[in-house]
Amino acid sequence: MQARQDRIEQVLASMLPDPAIAPTRLHEAMRYAVLGGGKRVRPLLAYAAGEAVGADPARVDRVAAAVELIHAYSLVHDDLPCMDDDVLRRGRPTVHVRYDEATAMLVGDSLQSLAFEVIAEGTIADDPRVERKMVAMLARASGSRGMAGGQAVDLDSQGKILSVPELEFMHGHKTGALILVAVLLGARCGNPSDAEIAGLGRYAKFVGLAFQVVDDILDATASTETLGKTAGKDADADKPTFVSAMGISRAKGFADELLADALASLDIVAERGERLREIARYVVARDR
Amino acid sequence: MQARQDRIEQVLASMLPDPAIAPTRLHEAMRYAVLGGGKRVRPLLAYAAGEAVGADPARVDRVAAAVELIHAYSLVHDDLPCMDDDVLRRGRPTVHVRYDEATAMLVGDSLQSLAFEVIAEGTIADDPRVERKMVAMLARASGSRGMAGGQAVDLDSQGKILSVPELEFMHGHKTGALILVAVLLGARCGNPSDAEIAGLGRYAKFVGLAFQVVDDILDATASTETLGKTAGKDADADKPTFVSAMGISRAKGFADELLADALASLDIVAERGERLREIARYVVARDR
Repeated sequence: MQARQDRIEQVLASMLPDPAIAPTRLHEAMRYAVLGGGKRVRPLLAYAAGEAVGADPARVDRVAAAVELIHAYSLVHDDLPCMDDDVLRRGRPTVHVRYDEATAMLVGDSLQSLAFEVIAEGTIADDPRVERKMVAMLARASGSRGMAGGQAVDLDSQGKILSVPELEFMHGHKTGALILVAVLLGARCGNPSDAEIAGLGRYAKFVGLAFQVVDDILDATASTETLGKTAGKDADADKPTFVSAMGISRAKGFADELLADALASLDIVAERGERLREIARYVVARDR
Repeated sequence: MQARQDRIEQVLASMLPDPAIAPTRLHEAMRYAVLGGGKRVRPLLAYAAGEAVGADPARVDRVAAAVELIHAYSLVHDDLPCMDDDVLRRGRPTVHVRYDEATAMLVGDSLQSLAFEVIAEGTIADDPRVERKMVAMLARASGSRGMAGGQAVDLDSQGKILSVPELEFMHGHKTGALILVAVLLGARCGNPSDAEIAGLGRYAKFVGLAFQVVDDILDATASTETLGKTAGKDADADKPTFVSAMGISRAKGFADELLADALASLDIVAERGERLREIARYVVARDR
């Protein structure tokens, strides 16, 4: 896992514009936002899904980087004062604190553009028609019917009580859509069968939901120092979470169930799914 | 020109998510940001460039819509308080005034994703490899080495005196990159020769610069009512413009020179470039 994290760090560094190119301050801030931190869960999932179907890792580099750039842009914008107004991310000042709000806005906008440049400018599948479809999948997962739409529902939900199905809908968009597309795009770099895509898709939905349940537990139980971002934010902002909906103990049990479901979805890829199993266990057992 | 403007309005309306789909408020705000206004200069250029090389207008619909969605997202973000802080656009309250800042941020983010979904999800050229390249061209023109990069230079330039070459660099990114890509993508929907692409590219660079020179003149001379956006903003914000650099009279002469250069670039497409000529004349003669 560490080797793959090092690999994605290098890939991201090589795909971000050189800070010597104008506009230099923007390019420096883009690198600050992306490099030197992060668990890289989405890239790890893309590589592992590619491995599960025998895809060329050099192709997966592009989709792994593109998905992480979308994730990074969303964090920069989420941290802005008009959104979550947060000052700490990955143990460092957020982009608008380190630079300024206008720069943070442009960093996010530029990282999104870069994601689509990265995924569209090199070979990622045998069939170029599939490549174009993969770009459209990333776009849909990022936009108003995916991640950004989940953000909008999240903003609307502050101070409200949501049922578990409502929480699942919100997170299915906010975090689930990008995790799902990371897995599916990684697999599409190879030539997966329909049955493999179906199994990997189920796996990704369970892992995506487990990821969010554990995020909610950590926000309620871990320290700001361990997390590298402000802890206790959900309760402070009166946000509905799996912890507020079902309590910590039941939320932990729910995460364990989701892990079991995720693992059961991988029978179709047999032993080639080992790394996906490893990531699922990590997502549930992590402490940050 | 009016027929093409009606066509792009219909195309955009059909490609924006239905406001009945959740999240409904975000989808309503996206439609508010895009529909019912705007000169649609970039789509008009894409259609006219397609016509100049005999491209199928049904293909150009997609690239015209994608470029306009990028333009629309940039306006929503530019108008935010942390950027230009403007309350009026196309004669109506800006998105963050009509809705709120967080929604305006998500509207811009979602429109950018939608642009890439629209350009990637249908046929836009004969060769799928060219299609993928076209997506990468749009991404690059939108990001830190294109439009968003020009924005960053613009922010940095407030209160500074820029030379005409420095102004050309800034606007070559901020407005020029997207106008250029509108023309090139419209042409790539057909099967243009290298000479046609070279001529159309030159045309687009002259028109893009003329567009900005005229924008600066209008900001200094037209009324808020005519413009549908706040007039006199550049001087108020102490922004360097072609008017501040060379005065109104010489700026008008410069726009006329650029128009002549644009028209001279179209010899290669002969009479099929008539609509491009019409747009270039409109860009320089417009009063809003």
